[in-house]
Amino acid sequence: MRYDIAIIGTGPAGLSAAITATIRNKSVLLLGSKDLSVKVTKAHAIQNYLGLPNIKGEDLGRAYQAHLDQMGISVTEDRIQAAYNMGEYYALQGVTEIYEAKALILATGMVPGKLLPGESQLLGRGVSYCATCDAPLYRGKRAAVIGYSEKEEHEAAFLAEVCSEVAYFPMYRDAGKSLPETVRVMTDRPTEITEAEGQRRVVTEAGPFDFDGVFILRDSISPGQLVPGLQIENNHVAVDRTMATNLPGCFACGDVVGLPYQYIKSAGEGNVAALSAAAYLDQKK
Amino acid sequence: MRYDIAIIGTGPAGLSAAITATIRNKSVLLLGSKDLSVKVTKAHAIQNYLGLPNIKGEDLGRAYQAHLDQMGISVTEDRIQAAYNMGEYYALQGVTEIYEAKALILATGMVPGKLLPGESQLLGRGVSYCATCDAPLYRGKRAAVIGYSEKEEHEAAFLAEVCSEVAYFPMYRDAGKSLPETVRVMTDRPTEITEAEGQRRVVTEAGPFDFDGVFILRDSISPGQLVPGLQIENNHVAVDRTMATNLPGCFACGDVVGLPYQYIKSAGEGNVAALSAAAYLDQKK
Repeated sequence: MRYDIAIIGTGPAGLSAAITATIRNKSVLLLGSKDLSVKVTKAHAIQNYLGLPNIKGEDLGRAYQAHLDQMGISVTEDRIQAAYNMGEYYALQGVTEIYEAKALILATGMVPGKLLPGESQLLGRGVSYCATCDAPLYRGKRAAVIGYSEKEEHEAAFLAEVCSEVAYFPMYRDAGKSLPETVRVMTDRPTEITEAEGQRRVVTEAGPFDFDGVFILRDSISPGQLVPGLQIENNHVAVDRTMATNLPGCFACGDVVGLPYQYIKSAGEGNVAALSAAAYLDQKK
Repeated sequence: MRYDIAIIGTGPAGLSAAITATIRNKSVLLLGSKDLSVKVTKAHAIQNYLGLPNIKGEDLGRAYQAHLDQMGISVTEDRIQAAYNMGEYYALQGVTEIYEAKALILATGMVPGKLLPGESQLLGRGVSYCATCDAPLYRGKRAAVIGYSEKEEHEAAFLAEVCSEVAYFPMYRDAGKSLPETVRVMTDRPTEITEAEGQRRVVTEAGPFDFDGVFILRDSISPGQLVPGLQIENNHVAVDRTMATNLPGCFACGDVVGLPYQYIKSAGEGNVAALSAAAYLDQKK
C-alpha cells in the first residue's frame, strides 16, 4: 500500500499533522512510539499550551492519546533508518519493512547534539544506527554500542545474544540497569570514531577501543542522515513558512525545524505541514 | 506606564502570546474584547486543536478564559486606531487613551477584504475608522456609516445622537435590527469613496450620496493602516519564521500573517512571537 502521507514522529508536531491530514481525507502512516512522546509525558507541568492551563505532561499525553482515539488514528511502531525521495513517492526504510508514501512529514523532534567526529563518514562502513537491521553482520564478532538513552540498553542486550562481545558506552548517567552481565559497561565517553587496521576504533579520553562494528543508537537520527538531499541550516531542517523543505513533497515541523522548542509551536506547525502536504497531493492529481 | 509588550487581538494568537510573555516575566497589555474571539466562540466544533478533541467553540472559549484567569491576565477593551513606531517604543492610539509599549505584537485576525477604492487616500480627511474618536468633528453635520457587522449599528446609533443626519450602509445581510429610527438604512452597497465639492461622496451602483464625513467600521483595521510603515505582502503582514515584521520590536502572528486560518497554527505562532519579543527586549537591556 502506498500511503498519501507518512509522518515520522509522535510528538505534538507529528500528532497535530496526523489529525489534520486525516480530516483532509488523506491516508496517513504515523510512525513513532505508542508512548507518543517521552518528552511530553515526562514534563512536570506545562504552563503555556493555550486552552490546557497548567497541565501535567502525563495528562497532556493522555489528552493526545484521546484525540488520536477519537479520530481513529493509530501509531505504527517502527524506527525509520532512511527515507528516499523516489520522484513520485518516498520509500521509508523501517527496521524490517519498507513503507511508501506520496508525501512525507518529518516531525522527528530535537536534533541530537553534534555527531561524533568520524560518525557520518563511517556510517554504513562499520558504523550502524540500527541493531535489528545490522546485527547479522556482526554474528560472532565484537561490537560497541554507544547508547544515548536507557532504552538503547535493550538493543545492546539483543546484540549480546548475537555478537561474541558487546561493549556499551552510555552517553547518559546511571546506565546499565537493563543490561545483562554479558555486556561490558564502559565508563569513558567516546569522542571520535576512526578506522584502524580494518577495525572500527572508538576513541575515548582514556584511550582507544577497537571493534568489528559500532552501533550508535539515539532516539532520533539527524534529519540530514535520515533523508538524503535534505537541506539543513544551523543544524535544523530548512523550511519556508508553509513548512516545505527543499525536496518536493517533503515537509517538516516541530523541534526538528528549529527553536523555540515549545509544544504549542510544534502543534501549530504540524497543522500547517499537513495542510501543505494535502495541497501538494491535491495539486498533483 | 510603559508596558514591555502590547498585544493587539484576543484570538488564539494574541492569547497564546500573552500567556507566554507573562511566563517570561514581561508586563503585558492585552488589547481586545472581553468576549475574546467571536470567531472561536461561534465555531460549531473544532476537530484539530491537538489535545482538545472535537471541542465546541464556546467550550474552547471557556478554556481560553480559564487559562487567562489562571495566569492572572486581563483584557483591556479598546479598539486601537493606529500604532506608531516611536523608535524606543510604540504609541498605541485607543479610542480615548494612548498606550505605550516597548514591543508590539499584532494578532488582529483575518485581514478584512479589499479596502474600498478611495478609502485609504481619504483616511483622516473626512474618512474615519472610529465613531467615538471623531464624532465631535461632525456635530450637527451629515455622516455616513459603512458598517461591516451588526455591532457597528451601535456606533451608528451613537453618531445619530451627535450628527444632524446619519445614513447607514450595511455590508452584511439583515441589517438594521439595532438601529434607531433616526438612522436611515441604505440598500445600495458602496463601491467607492471620492471627494466632490468639499463633500465626501459614497458611490453606489444606484448613484452617489454626499456627506460631511464617512465612517468605515470593521472588526479589524487592515494592518498596513494600523501600523504605518509595516511591510505587507499578499494582503498580510510579512513576517519571518521568528514572527518578526520589518519594524524593530514589532511582531505579528495568527491569521493576520496569512493562511492557513487555523486555531492551533495561530496559538503556535503567538507563542513564537512572544518569545521573539521577549528576546528583543532582553537584548536591548
